[in-house]
Amino acid sequence: MPSPNPPAPPPVPFTAEVYRARMAKAAESAAEAGLAGVIVAPGPDLVHLTGYQPVSTERLTLLVLRAEEEPVLVVPTLEAPDAAAAAGAPALALRDWTDGVDPYAVASPLLAPRGRFGVSDNAWAMHLLGLQRALPGTTYTALTEALPMLRAVKDAVELERLTAAGAAADATYEEILKVRFSGRRETDVAADLAALLKHFGHSQVDFTVVGSGPNGANPHHEAGERTIERGDMVVLDFGGLKHGYGSDTSRTVHVGEPTAEEQRVHDIVREAQQAGCAAVRPGVACQEIDRAARAVITEFGYGDRFIHRTGHGIGVTTHEPPYMIEGEEQALVPGMCFSVEPGIYLPGRFGVRIEDIVTVTEDGGRRLNATARELAIVE
Amino acid sequence: MPSPNPPAPPPVPFTAEVYRARMAKAAESAAEAGLAGVIVAPGPDLVHLTGYQPVSTERLTLLVLRAEEEPVLVVPTLEAPDAAAAAGAPALALRDWTDGVDPYAVASPLLAPRGRFGVSDNAWAMHLLGLQRALPGTTYTALTEALPMLRAVKDAVELERLTAAGAAADATYEEILKVRFSGRRETDVAADLAALLKHFGHSQVDFTVVGSGPNGANPHHEAGERTIERGDMVVLDFGGLKHGYGSDTSRTVHVGEPTAEEQRVHDIVREAQQAGCAAVRPGVACQEIDRAARAVITEFGYGDRFIHRTGHGIGVTTHEPPYMIEGEEQALVPGMCFSVEPGIYLPGRFGVRIEDIVTVTEDGGRRLNATARELAIVE
Repeated sequence: MPSPNPPAPPPVPFTAEVYRARMAKAAESAAEAGLAGVIVAPGPDLVHLTGYQPVSTERLTLLVLRAEEEPVLVVPTLEAPDAAAAAGAPALALRDWTDGVDPYAVASPLLAPRGRFGVSDNAWAMHLLGLQRALPGTTYTALTEALPMLRAVKDAVELERLTAAGAAADATYEEILKVRFSGRRETDVAADLAALLKHFGHSQVDFTVVGSGPNGANPHHEAGERTIERGDMVVLDFGGLKHGYGSDTSRTVHVGEPTAEEQRVHDIVREAQQAGCAAVRPGVACQEIDRAARAVITEFGYGDRFIHRTGHGIGVTTHEPPYMIEGEEQALVPGMCFSVEPGIYLPGRFGVRIEDIVTVTEDGGRRLNATARELAIVE
Repeated sequence: MPSPNPPAPPPVPFTAEVYRARMAKAAESAAEAGLAGVIVAPGPDLVHLTGYQPVSTERLTLLVLRAEEEPVLVVPTLEAPDAAAAAGAPALALRDWTDGVDPYAVASPLLAPRGRFGVSDNAWAMHLLGLQRALPGTTYTALTEALPMLRAVKDAVELERLTAAGAAADATYEEILKVRFSGRRETDVAADLAALLKHFGHSQVDFTVVGSGPNGANPHHEAGERTIERGDMVVLDFGGLKHGYGSDTSRTVHVGEPTAEEQRVHDIVREAQQAGCAAVRPGVACQEIDRAARAVITEFGYGDRFIHRTGHGIGVTTHEPPYMIEGEEQALVPGMCFSVEPGIYLPGRFGVRIEDIVTVTEDGGRRLNATARELAIVE
């Protein structure tokens, strides 16, 4: 295990003014996009806009943002004290509803009878159906479609937190190279990864993929009972939240010396990942990052073995827009942060994936992960 | 800390046949309710019907159930191996879609162009909007409205698991009475509760409410930095999942001797809780349980201080239908399991809540929690 980690001071919390500005910007962006407003459900949108995260989501909690109007947060009465204690609460009005009352009758007067609203992707279908019934003339569109940029461009403080989360993931990788792989189960190494992420300041571990040998060929394999053997390729993909912001990095290691083919496949993925990162600069469409990485893999004949998109945004969640995928024409903007993670998956044999978080700068991109990308040999 | 817990053997997993029967019953119930079918999103409905719990929910995963047709699970290609490994997978057909393809174009042919479908409450609004756009003539209704009984009536094996979860919560309460309260923070006692729940076999802790003194008057207060003092009432409300099924119990304790008023308020809540439990029997409407408990509290003049519904169902989640609330006319059926948890909340002073899980039997109700409900004195 690593040497003791000097305890870093927790970051300064975001102020009500920060949340006020974020809510105002969201309402303005909605108006510019021709929307009557935005309705926000519990989850990452609400955390980003208000700092509030209710315990339960079965009862309607809904933030309504409209240009030129004060933000209103509809909450169940029994959760109103918690909502009032949220960092963003001074920047909004609370409107509570009590068990037994129709919450949609409380929320719907805040919406425009014939307007179109952006709604959090993860709002419950039940709540959307309740609003659709209460206001048949109002229409809705998913926030990631209507305002994909809502949380995509990070400010300086957010970037600092993402940088710190990335550094913690890097420290985790440096340490995991020192542990024994062969003869241990994937779940044992996954537990090491989780412990290291927490040691380096993560409050939440979202995933600790350890895909050894053939398991590495399933890009969404987590970690199983398989015992890692000498000669295995092992895909490591791990991340979570530190001080509310995400980390997500992948490296593929080899237990003992690789074969020429394993080394070659790893080299191809490394080149593809480099090409994806090199393509990052303001104004470039997201799909160009995918194309740049995919072109390398295709050129070497493994195009049909790269079976997922090249990347996803990261912020208060570990997976969010923008997506680096064919068809995504959104232009990159300084402050966006996302993964670049091409891979090659050979069913029944092994997989390779290499992933860094990259932020768009004024004139290019900068990686938030800095550990070596060469194929590391572990014991 | 408690004496070592004899390790109980893990329960036998549900078979594909159990999942096949549950899916068939859901499709039949939908047809009986005049629905064209049911569409199920990741979460408790999907766990209940297939045993499958995907890692991510941003990509469309959707189970489509229609009477007389084989169940189909739409999954992202890269998650297909995980889905195929689920216990319920032999009882359904998988249909996968690859990043870059419109998932709603894959899912919508499985639906009826003009039918009405029940949809999981917690399906993402984004996915519902995608389906609404792909099939403008199809309509949707929330599953808890359309088929509130879908998961409400538990079979014998489920009841066994809920009983075991309740017993673990009871063991937790017995042990927490032995710890020191005064001079420790609420979060310390909450950590004890969480450790005990895990010690007694919970894999997941959903909540550990420790509401001391004035904090007890906020029914959704979790646990804070407040130091518990001699003379405090302390509301304890804790639960989670053991072998996939939920526990949820509340007791209110007192640090040292209570005042006459504190004892009296506790007595009223205890009588109300008893009245709620006594009202449970097949055929009685859910709202009657709420009325029975509320009548006692109202009679003693605290009606306006009982600010939440009396109870909620429990199963693969710790909060689900049926709800014991005014207006809920659903009749109780043997096998339903739910909480009975009246409370009195005196702002700025203290709160009292007492909660048991109750299951409906052939001729009444049976509590799954058996610890004493008298006001316990702690140190």
